[in-house]
Amino acid sequence: MHSLHPLFHPTSVALVGASSDPERIGGRPLRFMLEGGFEAPLYPVNRSGDTIQGLPAYASVRDIPHPVDHAIICVPVAGVEAAVRDSIAKGVKAIQVLTAGFAEVDAEGLALQDRIVGLCRDAGVRMVGPNSLGLLNVPTRFFATFSTALNGLKPRPGPIALATQSGAFGSAAYGAASLRGLGFSKIVATGNEADVDVAECIDYLVDDPDTRVICAALESCRDGDRLRAALLKAAHAGKPVVIMKVGRTELGAAAASTHTGSLAGDDAVYATVFEECGAWRAASIEEMLDIAYLHSTTGRLPQNTDVGVVTGSGGIGILMADDAGERGLQLSPLPAAARAAALELLPFAVASNPLDMTAQVTAVPQGVPRTVALMLDQADYGTVFAYLAHVGLSPQRFAATQAELIALKQRHPHRLLVLVMLSRPEVNAALEQHGIAVFEDPSRAVQAVAALAHVHQRRSALHLPPPSTGPSAPLGNVATEDGAKRALAAAGLPVLPERICRSATEAAEAASAMGYPVVAKIVSPDIVHKTEVGGVLLNLPDAQAVAEGFATLMQRAQTARPDARLDGVLVAPMLKGGVELIAGIHRDPTFGPMVMFGSGGTAVELFKDVAFASAPLTPQRARALMERVRSTQLLRGWRGGPQYDEQALADALCRLSEFAFSHADQIESIDINPLVVRVQGAACLDAVIAVRAPAPGDSHGTH
Amino acid sequence: MHSLHPLFHPTSVALVGASSDPERIGGRPLRFMLEGGFEAPLYPVNRSGDTIQGLPAYASVRDIPHPVDHAIICVPVAGVEAAVRDSIAKGVKAIQVLTAGFAEVDAEGLALQDRIVGLCRDAGVRMVGPNSLGLLNVPTRFFATFSTALNGLKPRPGPIALATQSGAFGSAAYGAASLRGLGFSKIVATGNEADVDVAECIDYLVDDPDTRVICAALESCRDGDRLRAALLKAAHAGKPVVIMKVGRTELGAAAASTHTGSLAGDDAVYATVFEECGAWRAASIEEMLDIAYLHSTTGRLPQNTDVGVVTGSGGIGILMADDAGERGLQLSPLPAAARAAALELLPFAVASNPLDMTAQVTAVPQGVPRTVALMLDQADYGTVFAYLAHVGLSPQRFAATQAELIALKQRHPHRLLVLVMLSRPEVNAALEQHGIAVFEDPSRAVQAVAALAHVHQRRSALHLPPPSTGPSAPLGNVATEDGAKRALAAAGLPVLPERICRSATEAAEAASAMGYPVVAKIVSPDIVHKTEVGGVLLNLPDAQAVAEGFATLMQRAQTARPDARLDGVLVAPMLKGGVELIAGIHRDPTFGPMVMFGSGGTAVELFKDVAFASAPLTPQRARALMERVRSTQLLRGWRGGPQYDEQALADALCRLSEFAFSHADQIESIDINPLVVRVQGAACLDAVIAVRAPAPGDSHGTH
Repeated sequence: MHSLHPLFHPTSVALVGASSDPERIGGRPLRFMLEGGFEAPLYPVNRSGDTIQGLPAYASVRDIPHPVDHAIICVPVAGVEAAVRDSIAKGVKAIQVLTAGFAEVDAEGLALQDRIVGLCRDAGVRMVGPNSLGLLNVPTRFFATFSTALNGLKPRPGPIALATQSGAFGSAAYGAASLRGLGFSKIVATGNEADVDVAECIDYLVDDPDTRVICAALESCRDGDRLRAALLKAAHAGKPVVIMKVGRTELGAAAASTHTGSLAGDDAVYATVFEECGAWRAASIEEMLDIAYLHSTTGRLPQNTDVGVVTGSGGIGILMADDAGERGLQLSPLPAAARAAALELLPFAVASNPLDMTAQVTAVPQGVPRTVALMLDQADYGTVFAYLAHVGLSPQRFAATQAELIALKQRHPHRLLVLVMLSRPEVNAALEQHGIAVFEDPSRAVQAVAALAHVHQRRSALHLPPPSTGPSAPLGNVATEDGAKRALAAAGLPVLPERICRSATEAAEAASAMGYPVVAKIVSPDIVHKTEVGGVLLNLPDAQAVAEGFATLMQRAQTARPDARLDGVLVAPMLKGGVELIAGIHRDPTFGPMVMFGSGGTAVELFKDVAFASAPLTPQRARALMERVRSTQLLRGWRGGPQYDEQALADALCRLSEFAFSHADQIESIDINPLVVRVQGAACLDAVIAVRAPAPGDSHGTH
Repeated sequence: MHSLHPLFHPTSVALVGASSDPERIGGRPLRFMLEGGFEAPLYPVNRSGDTIQGLPAYASVRDIPHPVDHAIICVPVAGVEAAVRDSIAKGVKAIQVLTAGFAEVDAEGLALQDRIVGLCRDAGVRMVGPNSLGLLNVPTRFFATFSTALNGLKPRPGPIALATQSGAFGSAAYGAASLRGLGFSKIVATGNEADVDVAECIDYLVDDPDTRVICAALESCRDGDRLRAALLKAAHAGKPVVIMKVGRTELGAAAASTHTGSLAGDDAVYATVFEECGAWRAASIEEMLDIAYLHSTTGRLPQNTDVGVVTGSGGIGILMADDAGERGLQLSPLPAAARAAALELLPFAVASNPLDMTAQVTAVPQGVPRTVALMLDQADYGTVFAYLAHVGLSPQRFAATQAELIALKQRHPHRLLVLVMLSRPEVNAALEQHGIAVFEDPSRAVQAVAALAHVHQRRSALHLPPPSTGPSAPLGNVATEDGAKRALAAAGLPVLPERICRSATEAAEAASAMGYPVVAKIVSPDIVHKTEVGGVLLNLPDAQAVAEGFATLMQRAQTARPDARLDGVLVAPMLKGGVELIAGIHRDPTFGPMVMFGSGGTAVELFKDVAFASAPLTPQRARALMERVRSTQLLRGWRGGPQYDEQALADALCRLSEFAFSHADQIESIDINPLVVRVQGAACLDAVIAVRAPAPGDSHGTH
C-alpha cells in the first residue's frame, strides 16, 4: 500500500482546533464533511471540550475513546507541536497541518517546522503541510479543507486529480473546473512541503484507480529526481500529467523571487524535464482544465499528431488549420478514395483536409456523420474534429446526427472524435458519456488535442535516468584548455591532434608534423579567456611564423598577466570550413547535469537558439536535442552547401553527456565553443571545464 | 449621410423569395423580424402571391403599392437578376442578395454577379452579397438573416459591431458572444463582396453611434487602400477594431488556398498593415470576444502598457506577471509610499507588484479596496487587476467590497479596473454597469488588456499614407548593379564611390584613386547573380592585382555566359568592419510597396529575423521597424563592440521607402544585400532592382 494512502483514505479523523463557528477556519472542514456526508467517524478536538457542530468534542486527541488514524490540525501555531505529539501518541498514520506561520514566515517558523516533521518521520507518520489548504478525497466526501471555494461549489466526483503546492492556486483551478461541471478524484494542497511534496502526490495518484488525468502546479521543486520518477511513472501508466509552473518569463520570475524569497531556478530546465518525462506544461489554468476535460472524456491519447477536420465553414476550417500548424500538428491530405466519396456525397464540397462540407451539407441526409465516417474509416488521423456551428443548441434537430456520431465513435474506439459547436449541457453530457468531447471554441479544442498528441509522442522518447554513479574517478587537471580537452578526448569527444610546446623550436617542429596552417594559443591555468590577452594566433602558414608566434604569445601573456603561470603554447591544426556550434554542461541545482546545445556565433544570445536536455543522452535523445535548435538546419545542405556529419555531432553530444553524468559530483559546467561539425567528423576547438566547489562535508567534491 | 445607411436603416423592406415555411431560407428572415418586432413595413414577394406568414404577399416588387427602400433577395439564382431589376425600378436604395451560386461557383456565376452589381452601381444602389448571410441592426430588430444561430439565441442589443466576410464565421462569433450575454449593435456578412466589403462596413460602423468596438473577420482584401483608410478612421475616432484574418500559418494558408481558390497574400503583410493602422489582430474567436467585452464594458483604452496587480494568491500573481511579460506589458514597482502604506495595512503582504495581500486580507476590514486604492491613487498604472478568487460567488459577503470598488472606479474614471474572480452573473452585471470588467481566467484577462493597451500605443505611431503619386519619372536603366546603385544614390541612399571601367588600365587607375584594398565585380545586364559565375573579386591589394583581376573577370564571364553583354568591371573600395544587414522593397498586390528590413547572413532565413512596413516611412516609423528586428541589437555595443550609426540606417530606410513609394508604378522589388552599417555612415554594397512588367493597358508601367 502506498504510504500516502492513510492521508486520502482515513478510517477515523480527529479535527484538532475544530470550531463551533462553521465559517471559521477550524469550523469549515467539519461543516464541509458533515454537509457532504463523509462516513468515517469525525472527532472534533477543542480545549473547551463540549459539543461542536453537533458532535461530541474532546479536549485532546489522547482523550478520544476510539482509534484515530488521521489528524487534521488547525490550532494556532503555538499549539501545533503539542497537537502533533498528541496525534502521534494516539497512533495516527497521517497528519495534515493547515496552520500557517512556519518556514514561509521566518527562521523560527522553519525550526518549528523541522521539529514537527522530525517527530512525524520518527513515528512513520506522513504529513501534509504545514501552511496547507488541506486535501479532498471526493468520492468518499473526505473534504478536509478550509477553502471557501467549497462554500458555493460542491465537489463533484470525476476522474481528474489535482496536486498543487499553492492552496490559492488549487482553489482557483477547483473553482473554475467546478463551474464547468468537471469532477475530481483527489485534490491536495501541499503547502510548505515539509514532508509530502507534489511529486510524491503524483506518484500516489498514478496508483489511484479513481484518477485518470493528473493536474499539478509547482512553484519550486526540492527533489528533482523524485519529480522525474513520478512523472515517468505516470507516463508509463498512461496517465497524462498536465503541469503548471509559474515564473516562465522574466517578469514572472521576478515576481516569483519576491513571492517565494528564493531563486526560481532556471525555467527552461523545468520545461525540458517536463517534456523529457512525458508531462505537458500548461500556460494557463484554462488550458490545463481543457486538457483534463478532453482526456477525462475521451479516456485516450491521440495515437499520432495527424488530425482530420470536417467543417461546415471554410473560415473556421482555416482557423483550425492555423491553430494546428502553430501547435505542431499535421493535416495530412484526405486519401483519394475518400475525396472521391466526399465529392459524390457533396458535389460542391472542398474535398481536402479541412474537408469543407459547405452549406449544402444541410440538404444531404446524414451529411455530417457520413463525412466524419470518411475521415475515420479511410484515413489514419489520430483525431477527427467536426465543426458543427450551433447545432447542439437544437437538441431535436441534432438527435439523429448525435446517434450516428456515437455509433461511429463506438466503431473507432481508438480515435479521438472532438466536436466543436455551441451546445446545451444535456447534449454534451450524452456525447461525453460515449467518449466524444465537445468544445465551444475551435482554437481551444485544437490546443487541447495538440497537448495530448504530444504527450503520446513523448512517450516514445522518455528520459530514463540510469542509477546515479557514486564518487567518480579524479578528473585530473582540467583547469587549462589542454587539460579540459584531454579529459574530453579521453571521454570519446573529438579533439584535434595538438601539442603543448615549451619552446619556439618545439612549436615549429610540432606544427610541421601536423601540417600547415596551424593555430597557436597560450596555455595557462590562470588565463581562461585567452582572446582577451591576445593569446590566440590563427592561420600560421609556416615554421617561421610559428616560432615567432611562440615568442609573441609568451610576451603578450607576461605583459597582460605578469603573475600568471605559463605552461607554454598549444599548437593545433587550423581547421577550415565546417559549421560552428556550441555544446556544454550546466549543473542545475535541482535536476543535475543538463546538456546545452546551441548555435555558434551571435545567434545563441540574439535568438536564444539553444536547447537543454538531461544527461546522459541516448542517441535518440541527442537527435531530438539537435532538432530543437534551428541552427542544426545549417548542417543539411543549407543554401546549396554540403551535408555535414550529423552523426559525429550526435556522438559528441552523447559522449559529453555521459562524461558529465559520470562526473556529476565534480563538474559544475563545461563549455565547448566552438564545436565545429565538418563534412566528416567534428572537433572541439576550445573547451573550458569548471569544477564544483566542494560542499561543506561533501566528500565527493573535487580535490 | 453614409451611403451604407439605407442598408442598416430601412424604412420599408421587400423580401423577394419570402417563404411561408418559417424554417426555409426564404422564411427565416421574415420569421426572425416578426418575432423580434421589427417596426417598419415588411412586404413578402413570392410568385404565388397570397399571404405569407400572416402578411399580404406580392408577385413582384413592382406590385407593392407602397414605397420600398430596401430589398432582401433570396430567390433561386436564376431569378436574382430580374429581382434586382425590379427592385431598382421600384426605387430601393439598398439591396441584399442572400442567394449563393455566383463568383464563388464558376465563371458564369461571376459574369452574373458582375451584371447585377453593374445594375446597382448605375442606379446608385448599394448592395450586400451575393452569397451573404445577411445583416442585422439589433436595436431596431432588423434581423435580415437566415442564420440558424438566431433560432436558439435571440439578438441582444449592445455596443459591439461585427463585420465579417464569411457568414459561418459570423454565426460562430455571434453564437459564442450571445451565450456569454454580449450584445450587438450591427452585424453584417459581406459574402462575395461584389459591392460592399468589410472595409467599407468598418468605415460605416465608425460613424455608427450605437457601436463602441468593431469586430471584423477577413479572408482576403481586394482594396488595400480602402482597408487602411477605414482602420485609420476608426483609430482616430477612438473605436478599437479587433480583426481576424485566417491563414496565419503555412498550414492555414494551404487550407485557405483550397478554400478561396486564390493565393491568400502574404500574411505578414496583413499583420503589418493592421498594426500600422491601429487595429488589433486576434488569433481566436474567444480572444476577439474577450477584447470586445473588455472595451464595451470599460469604454476606455488603457492609457499605458503598465499594469498593477493586486492578488490574494502569490501563485496567481506570478502567473499574471508571466502573461503580462509575454504580451509586452510592464509591471512597474509600487512607489515607496504605497509600499509602506500596504505594509502598514497588511504586515505580512509582499508589498511589491504584484502586491500579494496573502490570506491575512480577509482579516482586515476593506482590505481589498484599500489595497486597490493604493494602486490607483499612488501610481500611474493604466490598468489595475485585482485577483479575488471566488468571492463573486458569495454576493452577500462581497457586497461591501463591491460598493467600495465601484466608488474607487468612479474616482478614477480614466483607469481600467479589471477583476479576476469566479462570480455570479448578477454580481458581474452590477460591476460592469459601472465600467468594471470581470474575467474568470487570469490569463485571458491579461491578454485582453494587453491588446487594448497596444491599440492605444499604436495610435501614436500610425501609418498615414500620403496621396499616391501619379506616373513617376523614368527610372533609367536599373538592370545592372551599377544602374541600381546610381538610382538609389540619386534617391539619397549611401553608396560607395565606385566606377565602371572598360579596361585593365582604367580599373587600376580608378582603384589607385580610391585607395586599396578594392573590390572588383563584373557588370552585365544579363548576369544578376554575379557570384555564380565567379564574377566578384574581393580584397585586391594593389594596381597589379586590379589589372589582372579585370582580365580574370571578363574571361570568367565570357566562359560562363558567352551571350551575355558585358559592360565592364565595377571597382569599389573594400569595406572593413560594420554590421551587415539587408533592406528591400516588396510590392504587395493588395497593399503596394512594403519596406523589408532584416538580419544579414543566414539569420534572416533561419530565424525569420525580418520585418515589414508600408512605404513611405517617417523617421519614427523607420525606428519602429528597426526595433522589430533582433539583429538591430548588434548595432548597440553588442558584446563590447562599438555603437554603430543607427541614424544612418534609419535615414537609408526612409530614403529607400520614399523612392519605392514615388516609383510604385515602376518597381516590383528592390534588394539591398548587404546594407552595411558602420560606426559612421552606412553603405549599400549590392543592389538589385526588379521593374514591374507593364500590365496590359497600363500606361504607367516601365518602358
